[in-house]
Amino acid sequence: MMKLYSFKGAPNPRRVLIFAEEKGLRLDVVEVNLRGGETKTSAFLGKNPSGKIPVLELPDGTCLPESVAICRYLEALAPEPNLFGTDPLETAQIEAVHRQLELELFAHIGAAWVNGPIVAAAGLVKPIEAQRLRGEGLAKKYYARLNEELTSRPFLAGERFTVADISAVCLVEFAAARVNLAPDASLTALAAWHERVRSRPSVQAHPA
Amino acid sequence: MMKLYSFKGAPNPRRVLIFAEEKGLRLDVVEVNLRGGETKTSAFLGKNPSGKIPVLELPDGTCLPESVAICRYLEALAPEPNLFGTDPLETAQIEAVHRQLELELFAHIGAAWVNGPIVAAAGLVKPIEAQRLRGEGLAKKYYARLNEELTSRPFLAGERFTVADISAVCLVEFAAARVNLAPDASLTALAAWHERVRSRPSVQAHPA
Repeated sequence: MMKLYSFKGAPNPRRVLIFAEEKGLRLDVVEVNLRGGETKTSAFLGKNPSGKIPVLELPDGTCLPESVAICRYLEALAPEPNLFGTDPLETAQIEAVHRQLELELFAHIGAAWVNGPIVAAAGLVKPIEAQRLRGEGLAKKYYARLNEELTSRPFLAGERFTVADISAVCLVEFAAARVNLAPDASLTALAAWHERVRSRPSVQAHPA
Repeated sequence: MMKLYSFKGAPNPRRVLIFAEEKGLRLDVVEVNLRGGETKTSAFLGKNPSGKIPVLELPDGTCLPESVAICRYLEALAPEPNLFGTDPLETAQIEAVHRQLELELFAHIGAAWVNGPIVAAAGLVKPIEAQRLRGEGLAKKYYARLNEELTSRPFLAGERFTVADISAVCLVEFAAARVNLAPDASLTALAAWHERVRSRPSVQAHPA
């Protein structure tokens, strides 16, 4: 069976777990000792030179890092239900939406997280307060954009649930739980989308 | 003919131009007035809600933003020479390498750029000096990692030239020209890779 190196509560492995659940694929989840520094050991760096989770390990020992690369690989193994797009244009459109989410929301929530109190208390990074505040501001601006877009379509990339929605639900719930950055209640289209996505069995099976 | 909204000297449209050149695809390049704010007009936001270049416009008016999504679309139109991978595992491995480059080098060079003197002089962003310095430090660390990896393989993702090399050459040359972040000359494997890639006709046809 394929192994997934994971850490409970982290948004990136959660994306893979929800994705695999949608596909009906079983993964053998290996919890790493993230706080104990396991991902920075030479053994783990051999699996992923970035020293991050998730990593998918195939039965022959081949290791594949990066949640979105892992999901694309799982899509090839189990094409249905399709989550990355069915033709070249739709595939590219979903990737564009997904990239903008990652580069313009995930990155800013990440900046707020890395420079916030939990990471500072762990002594991992010297926080830069101005960067934390900028991250918060840009994340809120992106939430407003998402809300506007979701007034005219039910899911991030259009009429159907895709990998972009999986990333978004993991991100929004991480931001709410760990970065004090839940979307404002006034963003009603975003809240309605969140209800639609959080009620899926795959998302319920792998809570934040 | 497909149009590419672009801006001379920007690394992201350059990735698409080099990629299209490798494929022998012709694009009608439309230079936008980036400094004059054209990408923030409602007309342009209709093409890309992120207000960024590049954007590919198809003959029917459909607009596709995000350089990597555009490249993947072009790969589907013109499969040879293959630049994204030929089977599910290789495709995922190339994507993993490419994502790490973007998230762990591009992002930090971007932080150094956004908080640096050129952007500050344009009055676009209030610079955060600590963030600029952190970006520089993390970029240099990633250069050292790339150098180490390139001692045992000729290209970023292995034995052959891929989309990851296109992104990397655009990024490294932008960092050198605009962010004062050229890789240190002691990184000889990285320098040798740079020579290998910069000498390609596609890269020469679209200089930084």
